[in-house]
Amino acid sequence: MTRIDGRAADELREVRITRKWLDHAEGSCLVEFGKTRVLVAASVEEGVPRWMKGQGKGWVTSEYEMLPRATHTRSGRESRKGKIGGRTHEISRLIGRALRAVIDYEALGENTIVIDCDVLQADGGTRTASITGAYVALADAIEHLRAKGALKGEPLKDSVAAISVGVVDGTPMLDLAYTEDSTADTDMNIVVAGNGDFIEVQGTAEGVPFDRDTLNILLDLGLKGCAELKDKQAAALAEPAAGK
Amino acid sequence: MTRIDGRAADELREVRITRKWLDHAEGSCLVEFGKTRVLVAASVEEGVPRWMKGQGKGWVTSEYEMLPRATHTRSGRESRKGKIGGRTHEISRLIGRALRAVIDYEALGENTIVIDCDVLQADGGTRTASITGAYVALADAIEHLRAKGALKGEPLKDSVAAISVGVVDGTPMLDLAYTEDSTADTDMNIVVAGNGDFIEVQGTAEGVPFDRDTLNILLDLGLKGCAELKDKQAAALAEPAAGK
Amino acid sequence: MTRIDGRAADELREVRITRKWLDHAEGSCLVEFGKTRVLVAASVEEGVPRWMKGQGKGWVTSEYEMLPRATHTRSGRESRKGKIGGRTHEISRLIGRALRAVIDYEALGENTIVIDCDVLQADGGTRTASITGAYVALADAIEHLRAKGALKGEPLKDSVAAISVGVVDGTPMLDLAYTEDSTADTDMNIVVAGNGDFIEVQGTAEGVPFDRDTLNILLDLGLKGCAELKDKQAAALAEPAAGK
Amino acid sequence: MTRIDGRAADELREVRITRKWLDHAEGSCLVEFGKTRVLVAASVEEGVPRWMKGQGKGWVTSEYEMLPRATHTRSGRESRKGKIGGRTHEISRLIGRALRAVIDYEALGENTIVIDCDVLQADGGTRTASITGAYVALADAIEHLRAKGALKGEPLKDSVAAISVGVVDGTPMLDLAYTEDSTADTDMNIVVAGNGDFIEVQGTAEGVPFDRDTLNILLDLGLKGCAELKDKQAAALAEPAAGK
Amino acid sequence: MTRIDGRAADELREVRITRKWLDHAEGSCLVEFGKTRVLVAASVEEGVPRWMKGQGKGWVTSEYEMLPRATHTRSGRESRKGKIGGRTHEISRLIGRALRAVIDYEALGENTIVIDCDVLQADGGTRTASITGAYVALADAIEHLRAKGALKGEPLKDSVAAISVGVVDGTPMLDLAYTEDSTADTDMNIVVAGNGDFIEVQGTAEGVPFDRDTLNILLDLGLKGCAELKDKQAAALAEPAAGK
Amino acid sequence: MTRIDGRAADELREVRITRKWLDHAEGSCLVEFGKTRVLVAASVEEGVPRWMKGQGKGWVTSEYEMLPRATHTRSGRESRKGKIGGRTHEISRLIGRALRAVIDYEALGENTIVIDCDVLQADGGTRTASITGAYVALADAIEHLRAKGALKGEPLKDSVAAISVGVVDGTPMLDLAYTEDSTADTDMNIVVAGNGDFIEVQGTAEGVPFDRDTLNILLDLGLKGCAELKDKQAAALAEPAAGK
Repeated sequence: MTRIDGRAADELREVRITRKWLDHAEGSCLVEFGKTRVLVAASVEEGVPRWMKGQGKGWVTSEYEMLPRATHTRSGRESRKGKIGGRTHEISRLIGRALRAVIDYEALGENTIVIDCDVLQADGGTRTASITGAYVALADAIEHLRAKGALKGEPLKDSVAAISVGVVDGTPMLDLAYTEDSTADTDMNIVVAGNGDFIEVQGTAEGVPFDRDTLNILLDLGLKGCAELKDKQAAALAEPAAGK
Repeated sequence: MTRIDGRAADELREVRITRKWLDHAEGSCLVEFGKTRVLVAASVEEGVPRWMKGQGKGWVTSEYEMLPRATHTRSGRESRKGKIGGRTHEISRLIGRALRAVIDYEALGENTIVIDCDVLQADGGTRTASITGAYVALADAIEHLRAKGALKGEPLKDSVAAISVGVVDGTPMLDLAYTEDSTADTDMNIVVAGNGDFIEVQGTAEGVPFDRDTLNILLDLGLKGCAELKDKQAAALAEPAAGK
Repeated sequence: MTRIDGRAADELREVRITRKWLDHAEGSCLVEFGKTRVLVAASVEEGVPRWMKGQGKGWVTSEYEMLPRATHTRSGRESRKGKIGGRTHEISRLIGRALRAVIDYEALGENTIVIDCDVLQADGGTRTASITGAYVALADAIEHLRAKGALKGEPLKDSVAAISVGVVDGTPMLDLAYTEDSTADTDMNIVVAGNGDFIEVQGTAEGVPFDRDTLNILLDLGLKGCAELKDKQAAALAEPAAGK
Repeated sequence: MTRIDGRAADELREVRITRKWLDHAEGSCLVEFGKTRVLVAASVEEGVPRWMKGQGKGWVTSEYEMLPRATHTRSGRESRKGKIGGRTHEISRLIGRALRAVIDYEALGENTIVIDCDVLQADGGTRTASITGAYVALADAIEHLRAKGALKGEPLKDSVAAISVGVVDGTPMLDLAYTEDSTADTDMNIVVAGNGDFIEVQGTAEGVPFDRDTLNILLDLGLKGCAELKDKQAAALAEPAAGK
Repeated sequence: MTRIDGRAADELREVRITRKWLDHAEGSCLVEFGKTRVLVAASVEEGVPRWMKGQGKGWVTSEYEMLPRATHTRSGRESRKGKIGGRTHEISRLIGRALRAVIDYEALGENTIVIDCDVLQADGGTRTASITGAYVALADAIEHLRAKGALKGEPLKDSVAAISVGVVDGTPMLDLAYTEDSTADTDMNIVVAGNGDFIEVQGTAEGVPFDRDTLNILLDLGLKGCAELKDKQAAALAEPAAGK
Repeated sequence: MTRIDGRAADELREVRITRKWLDHAEGSCLVEFGKTRVLVAASVEEGVPRWMKGQGKGWVTSEYEMLPRATHTRSGRESRKGKIGGRTHEISRLIGRALRAVIDYEALGENTIVIDCDVLQADGGTRTASITGAYVALADAIEHLRAKGALKGEPLKDSVAAISVGVVDGTPMLDLAYTEDSTADTDMNIVVAGNGDFIEVQGTAEGVPFDRDTLNILLDLGLKGCAELKDKQAAALAEPAAGK
């Protein structure tokens, strides 16, 4: 079976991570999974939210949003509607949880890092591209804090990457593009730490419920994809950042 | 190992489903998982949202919310804040997806069923109690449509139930109460169809990432719990409804 | 003349007050006037709003809201609309004023009690049932503060109850059910202290303006009803609370 | 006992009604009760709200708001806060109800009249001045519709006026100014039709509950005040309007 | 060429500035440019916004809004819509900038003056009338601060006035009325200091782009108009204020 | 005098216009004025807003927004605040007006083009870069409509470009970078049609008011800058678009 873009079922799209795409942000990258392009900015802010003050711990949070014409047809801006939609909320929360799972709050000290993931173009997998790129921007932001002597230890316990998997026309597939995702029977997003353990597994039956065997095949595919993304992240972080 | 309330690790809390708790709603129940109490109302509305008109299909959607003093300390009302929080959005969407997975839209005809899940008291598992009760209220609402001759077939393809599982102090457990949930390392919500297949699997590492074995143990526990809930649902639907 | 449910014109519906219906709230009850059911929770919060600080006085406030399917047909949630409607605002303010009229702020000390009245089912008289139940929940919340030694005296100066009266098809009636209320020419809500004095009188001509004699008859009916409610409240507070 | 501004207890402040203060509005006036100044505009709009269409009946509604510096110290604008406060809602609703009580919807035909009451300066009694002025603006707007031949009969069944009364330092008084109102024990707003019947009675115990005798004295005072206001309205409507 | 109201092309409408129209505000006026009427209130508030604290400097800001029936047909209230429109925002910001250009913040001390410009009736030029009247109210508010001994010097460096100019049917004109403004090809608002220098120039091609010569003619007209307004302002400030 | 980045006073920063940066949008570019980077997307939508229907004319509108970390320090998202700020509103309106000045609505037919300008990085001149890039994206969107045969003529009457000018430390300068803009005494944005006529002139005295000579020097500089931008636009549109 050949996929719409000629990939094998267990093959990632072309992944590009352009580090330090922004000049002002303490960490940033433009992450691309095929035509999906997300601009990630990591902002270091002194101090922590009020409810965390005085505990000597840091905080990492995230906000995700799509530009109105990221999609095939234009969507209205949430800022104009005056409220954030459920999908935006849900993905923002997912990204924040994924990153916090690899952070040692005490080592971070009372610093906050805000990760903004803005989807410039969407072709499926925007949340997984966001998490994958966010790790790179986060690592650079932490490096910035280290250079300033603002850390109390090593806050990054591990790396984190994420990928989507799903069953399309009966075939389990890795890294779904939009047209695949929109016809998938089962859709799963997997967030995996650098050591191969799970941080988040979110599987949804879009059509018919799925059985245990399907779940296992999808998990295998997802672990394979995240292992490859881990290498891409390491390569990006190893390069001297060229900026845009 | 004994749990805080004396249960075995694989034991549900006492589950009560009081059908037709409301007089006006086409379907309703008060569902209780221990101290967690959710009032579920299923409302039948003629017609479907504008974007679905003329396709001969129905629609099922859900809204979840907590009363301000459902929790140990009072929370402000989202209506006063002027916006819905991310958690409320996320759970509302989850309940809707869970129910739609067992619905045949064509058999439902151009009818909408709105499921309101309002948490009167929260002690962990409010989303899983909501889904479990929502199936019962949905079944009664569909019965109401059938009695009116408004259906085109049998819209309910299967039943649906949901339960939480997690790892607390190293022990995998079924149906976490609030104090267990708030200290769990891994937290998972599982939505299962009557035939035992998965509708949704959402596992999150709250502390350290979890491995594949842990995932499998949690899935086993969740399937056991949902099978028991399926029987409770059937028993509730078999009784002549006594109302409050 | 017989009323729709067989009552005499000056007869209350069956009134039930189930104390301590909630496990977490410092005071609570499920109050029922016939099919109207309101869940009342009294929450004790340390301190007072910023504008009252340092005066040594307490504060009592209230929020009222209806569940979407409390009514015969479903209403949209105010939290989703992003704003509170005029009716919700008005009733919330009325309940707060009614309770504050029997409170000695100095004796309460710098404590705040928030009374949440959530209408689970509506059949007329939701604001009067709310006030009547709120007194019971408030008394328990104050008892909680007393047990903690947090009071400076006796903050409850008297009890408070409320009832609706109106002219339906030319007949003055007590405690209108929804179908009566919606066809009433004159509609009045009366809030009365335990000593029989008025705390609030709100009469509205829905159809034709009403004369002084009618006003007096309605006031008589309302005073009779509130006297009976006062006994119900006392009985509820006298019982050892059984919880739900 | 002399009042702060030298009035007798049963004396109105100086009342001025300047008709047709605005050039564009179909009806308008600047109504003044002492230093309280409200600009009232009555706007005629063709048709009725969607939920009333096709019934051959008209609609009258009202919106009340205060300019930010109407008061002694500046208040923030509700438009900037993004929401209407409870007091604004409540008074808007009261004005609308008061006017609708004297309107024959069928005679009005399918026309809507919107009454805007904007408080330019506040010194107590803004809601009663609004209602009193609104009747004058409404009468002119109806005259405008009559001149166009857009009426089906005489929509104005009677006039309507409103006044505040209260007990200040133990003395029942008519038409409270701000400093009187803010120290009143009992505060009542009375809306009266031209024939002397009540349209709305809203009495509130601000300090201690009030008894039946006090209620009766206040009602007498209010009826006296409304009778005088009725004459002022008639005089204003009798004059050839001079505009500003 | 004769204008709609008989004016010459370079002639202002009748300008009236009624000082101290309000009793509570520290400075106020009703400013009229023909039928355009704006009520301006200057409110003195102790202290400055948080971001300016401790610098020993003051702040001047402004909010502009239109009453719903200021216009030929009624517009909905922004407070009901829950958001401020772009035009309201833009004009509020313009007025604030215009006033701040003639203020010496240090001499003002840590005081804030808020200028509210509420359009009671609109017939073109509401923003220029607002700025012109705002200067008068501001001068009185500063006088109030001076009388209290709250200033550190003379905060008013110069006066400020504003006028609209435009090209209507090929003719450059001063002070456009609404019907002129709505058909103008080019529309310009000019804010000028007492010394004749520009504070703001905002020219917009509504129809076809305009050339440098047209721009110069319009600037000449505007400077002429502002010089005349400066005299009107001085006259108003010279009079003993009569209030309304 | 040398500028911070070594430019001459009348020299533009490096301008880059990367056409068709997006795959889905009908027209798009990434426009850069030095470090300022704006992603512009032109979306073609069938039909026009309701208030324009049936007139046979088209519509062009624009929305501008900044990503939260476009700036030196992170700003909160307007979507989270639930409202658009004044600056965002003002710039969105300016861009729309600028483009509409060169559009023949009748030739456009009943089509709407929405121009989204999202600032990915801000270093001064974001509104002028937006307008300059928007013309290129608009031209491509119109080309798309032409290719579909959806036009009634040639809707583009001319090109449009924009640039900022200002007086910094006494020196008039072209195309201010952020550090220059934030210390400028006078700040002006000029929008110029391809034929050299003005579409919009917005000059503001940030410090002291400016005289007529300064105004003229700034206009000269702005016209020079816009003429150069016109060439850049033409060059971009002449190239076969390479996409990103």
